[in-house]
Amino acid sequence: MKAAAICLSRCPRLPPRGKRRRIDCRSEYRCLFQGSHAGRSKMILRDMTRAECEAALSANCIGHLGCISGNRPYVVPIRYVYQKRVFYSFSLPGRKIDSLRFNPRVCVQVEQLANPEEWKSVLLEGLYRELPDDEKDHGEHMRAWQLLQELGNWWEPGAYKPEGAAHPDPDAPARPVFYRVEIDTLSGRQAAMA
Amino acid sequence: MKAAAICLSRCPRLPPRGKRRRIDCRSEYRCLFQGSHAGRSKMILRDMTRAECEAALSANCIGHLGCISGNRPYVVPIRYVYQKRVFYSFSLPGRKIDSLRFNPRVCVQVEQLANPEEWKSVLLEGLYRELPDDEKDHGEHMRAWQLLQELGNWWEPGAYKPEGAAHPDPDAPARPVFYRVEIDTLSGRQAAMA
Repeated sequence: MKAAAICLSRCPRLPPRGKRRRIDCRSEYRCLFQGSHAGRSKMILRDMTRAECEAALSANCIGHLGCISGNRPYVVPIRYVYQKRVFYSFSLPGRKIDSLRFNPRVCVQVEQLANPEEWKSVLLEGLYRELPDDEKDHGEHMRAWQLLQELGNWWEPGAYKPEGAAHPDPDAPARPVFYRVEIDTLSGRQAAMA
Repeated sequence: MKAAAICLSRCPRLPPRGKRRRIDCRSEYRCLFQGSHAGRSKMILRDMTRAECEAALSANCIGHLGCISGNRPYVVPIRYVYQKRVFYSFSLPGRKIDSLRFNPRVCVQVEQLANPEEWKSVLLEGLYRELPDDEKDHGEHMRAWQLLQELGNWWEPGAYKPEGAAHPDPDAPARPVFYRVEIDTLSGRQAAMA
């Protein structure tokens, strides 16, 4: 496991906060990245184990999903549940679902912040797998729904759509799409004070 | 401007929170998406104007950047500054910068949460434009650095790398890369209680 320490004290070479002056030294900010200053508090950064990544995913329910939408990256906040190594989420139909149906490659980044010096960030990469409410997938569709509705207010914010987009016909409202992510890689970094 | 209202009260058709039972009604969750229930509080969702999107970007400094990394989506949290319609950020070299140099298409999602019913979410899409510390770009490079360092602890968390990755040679530390995003589109949604 790799770890690095870096001084959190204000670098004496930096200009005073808020003070604007011409700085012409190209190496002036280097000291921020050169490691520890003796006798000062340090932040330790290390790679997380897979078990630690899974624990962080389980302990949280909000993440940021990235997908490819018409050859462009697209990021949206999502609510999710991670339980027994399965990642479930949902969305109303729209750009995200259209994109994921066309290109199922997906990543989800989840962070857990205690304070600016103590945090975890987990990155999950995998494939979108839709769970339609059909004969084959009904059981898992309902399992996803049950887990997600336990979050409380679980249909926000991804489920909302401006009027007209989501409710073109009040008698045929848009139905949420449930999905899981089949995980290819799981990685994470954790920062803590030394 | 489009707006939709949806009831925030607990839907009576949902099973009690935490209670697991077999649910076989495929339309049981539809009511969540059908609009308001008379006499209850409602959340109003609407599209934000460009000016509102810019104000939200200016008022925040943390976002989630999406890019395309080897044909896969990739999401990372970033610190940024948005001032006078220019979006600046930075990173140490690594997967994100390698990806953006290869494919400069980028999006940044920024959210501002007052509570679960009152939030803003802004999506910026555009092109990565690196600001090297060379003769042509030195002025803007230094401007980006000055604005970003005023955030305080501005080099976290994107700047940190596990030892070995960022500091292969203590005498030649990795140098941060500064960049701006040239904005193609800016959009946002705001939720508030009626």
